[in-house]
Amino acid sequence: MPALDATHDPARRSHVEDANLPDCDFPIQNLPYGAFSLDGGAVRVGVAIGSRILDLTLLEAEGLLRPGDNDGAVKVFQSGVLNPFMALEQSRWTDTRRRIADLLDAGADLPSAVRALIDRALVPRAAARMHLPFYARGFTDFYASREHATNVGTMFRGADNALMPNWLHIPVGYNARASTVVVSGTDIRRPLGQLRGPEDAAPRLAPSRKLDFELELGAVVGGANPMGQPVTVAAAYDMIFGYVLLNDWSARDIQVWEYQPLGPFQAKVFGTSVSPWVVTRDALEPFRVATPPRETPLLPYLSETAPGNFDIHLEVALSPRDGGETVISRTNSRFMYYSAAQQLAHHSLCGCAMETGDLLGSGTVSGPPRDSCGSLLELTWNGRDPIEVDGGARTFLEDGDTVVLRGYCADGYRVGFGVCAGTILPAPSAAEFGGEE
Amino acid sequence: MPALDATHDPARRSHVEDANLPDCDFPIQNLPYGAFSLDGGAVRVGVAIGSRILDLTLLEAEGLLRPGDNDGAVKVFQSGVLNPFMALEQSRWTDTRRRIADLLDAGADLPSAVRALIDRALVPRAAARMHLPFYARGFTDFYASREHATNVGTMFRGADNALMPNWLHIPVGYNARASTVVVSGTDIRRPLGQLRGPEDAAPRLAPSRKLDFELELGAVVGGANPMGQPVTVAAAYDMIFGYVLLNDWSARDIQVWEYQPLGPFQAKVFGTSVSPWVVTRDALEPFRVATPPRETPLLPYLSETAPGNFDIHLEVALSPRDGGETVISRTNSRFMYYSAAQQLAHHSLCGCAMETGDLLGSGTVSGPPRDSCGSLLELTWNGRDPIEVDGGARTFLEDGDTVVLRGYCADGYRVGFGVCAGTILPAPSAAEFGGEE
Repeated sequence: MPALDATHDPARRSHVEDANLPDCDFPIQNLPYGAFSLDGGAVRVGVAIGSRILDLTLLEAEGLLRPGDNDGAVKVFQSGVLNPFMALEQSRWTDTRRRIADLLDAGADLPSAVRALIDRALVPRAAARMHLPFYARGFTDFYASREHATNVGTMFRGADNALMPNWLHIPVGYNARASTVVVSGTDIRRPLGQLRGPEDAAPRLAPSRKLDFELELGAVVGGANPMGQPVTVAAAYDMIFGYVLLNDWSARDIQVWEYQPLGPFQAKVFGTSVSPWVVTRDALEPFRVATPPRETPLLPYLSETAPGNFDIHLEVALSPRDGGETVISRTNSRFMYYSAAQQLAHHSLCGCAMETGDLLGSGTVSGPPRDSCGSLLELTWNGRDPIEVDGGARTFLEDGDTVVLRGYCADGYRVGFGVCAGTILPAPSAAEFGGEE
Repeated sequence: MPALDATHDPARRSHVEDANLPDCDFPIQNLPYGAFSLDGGAVRVGVAIGSRILDLTLLEAEGLLRPGDNDGAVKVFQSGVLNPFMALEQSRWTDTRRRIADLLDAGADLPSAVRALIDRALVPRAAARMHLPFYARGFTDFYASREHATNVGTMFRGADNALMPNWLHIPVGYNARASTVVVSGTDIRRPLGQLRGPEDAAPRLAPSRKLDFELELGAVVGGANPMGQPVTVAAAYDMIFGYVLLNDWSARDIQVWEYQPLGPFQAKVFGTSVSPWVVTRDALEPFRVATPPRETPLLPYLSETAPGNFDIHLEVALSPRDGGETVISRTNSRFMYYSAAQQLAHHSLCGCAMETGDLLGSGTVSGPPRDSCGSLLELTWNGRDPIEVDGGARTFLEDGDTVVLRGYCADGYRVGFGVCAGTILPAPSAAEFGGEE
């Protein structure tokens, strides 16, 4: 378990003045990594600080940062994604964070040439276009909220079979689709799908009418393990580079018809949104909390020797095309039954190779009260109880709706995730594929 | 539907003499692509011809092949994987095949310098180490044999629920794991897993005792579609670059405890073997056959306007560490209910982006007679009826067992896949993770 150090000092201030405002997501204690471009130029790697981005691609090229090696010969911020940096030893992640904090410290005593270079490297966030910060090598989605699993199980299989017998023993998860992991701001097209409701005599092809979001936390894997070699929970914790907000868009009507016996497929693979800033494990260190008490003991390979959850306040807001924003759910990731480290350890138990850039979704974050649930499926109880939003009522998502996820930790300062947003576009023509519009 | 051309002429012969032997898997009508190295050198791309490999990396570097563009400025055979070549327009695949066939033709009238270069580029297959021929971007596994789905369903859920109601309407599939797709010859370590049999009071961590193979055909995707844009079955057929034999190693005791409700995970992600030679769609063209008659009509988006299956003879052999080889199953891919093109079209229906290097597993190929089934689960009826192999009896795989898949099309000449082989290594220490040895 890494120690807290000067990068976590709540009293520390940055010379980027608006990073010191109390509600700023990106103070000097955060320093999340992202990928950005300006004016259609090449994609660069940077760190968010207040209203600015510190351009690490520039600083590394100028020799001010040498995470790759001590000579600066190995460059890791020049390819527009975090993968080369994440593939370094974990001590390099921590060293680089300390170096960046020192460069952004209000009291930094820097040579004038260095100060001039940093000024040049601080670009306005508002002018930047954000890109997917890492190449998503693989994507695995889990199911770690007991409340969510119980709610969905109740609706899909009835209360008696809601929580499967394995759920309290296994961090249940499934392979998801990496090719459609996209950065916040990317529009999501309503999927066509094969549907068969209880009233349908036969299946039909039509646009999904039960399009939903799922509020999740995503763990971004930096380290790797060779095929055939499981990793412990402690090692798994250390392999995780950082975390993002994740929206696992879901088509419930496609899912209910297709998911047996091999699990969700078309219902989930049409798009997954992640926030543009990867908040590092180091920045989250002060906000670690233990997973909830176990109802039944876990097998030793899943036991945690240190807290594996995080105290992250999460919320979901919905904005219709012609309405303002309504916050429809407030919850917290601290209640998840399994941590990302437990999920990763389970993932590798069989010898599965984890690779730099793998993304692990936590599963929908839902709390016990209805208004702390992380999906419309639960918030509206599968459409039975519409919710009110500015400009109308909703059971599931309509074309033009924008879903915004937000999250932050707070303890005198905020470690924020920014936003993870996506807007629903109309489905492609179903008639073109012989279906119903 | 591409026309047959001179590359399919059964009378054509190669100047590589042993390519003309009647049982050779790699005559001039085949020309499958692979990745190889010699004496620990760099990985190169080549084509199998008789007992030789034609080194395309060398020929391209010397200007004799220009698949990337007409000037030879864009090189596609220099990175040790087929992905850059597969990402080209499909007409380039066909043109390159014709060019290679012309260079290998027994009657080729080539300038002496070209002939000398080709002689230099023809290296012995026996001396080559084979590598994974493509970077597996994504891996999706399907479930297209009606017999297999019925057999497994009967064993896992009883005869009344064997075939789910969706099976005759949907090419059922699930996201699988790309990071552990390995080339034939790579050893497979028996997985540890969380197990709970009917006799167990609680789950336990132990090595799988029901380790199995699955005989499948793998489709290697060359083309791509943007997120949000489904593709038709005809377009899907054209997007497939070629096919490999695929062994979807499976741990049945892990699977039965974990798979509900999100599908197989640890039971399948520990390793998937593929044959080193990608047999092209062009080479398989003469062996296209229609999918079987439909019991119920498919929705129009799945209908085929041209035959989508292939008449490929398949077999599985098992060799214990101390025994000879026994062929334990003989079957054919022509009976699969859904073709790879139908699977790919369904995969993209929701708007899922398919990418160059995606691998689609057909699902286990099983025929109606017991000895034509593609898994030990079916061959031994979940261990109830052991089968005899040289040196002993088997219910599931033992440490040291080698499983070999073979496949070929035949019509005067053979279009063969070579072998897809893997040997079982003992599990890692379970005690290290608090489990049972």
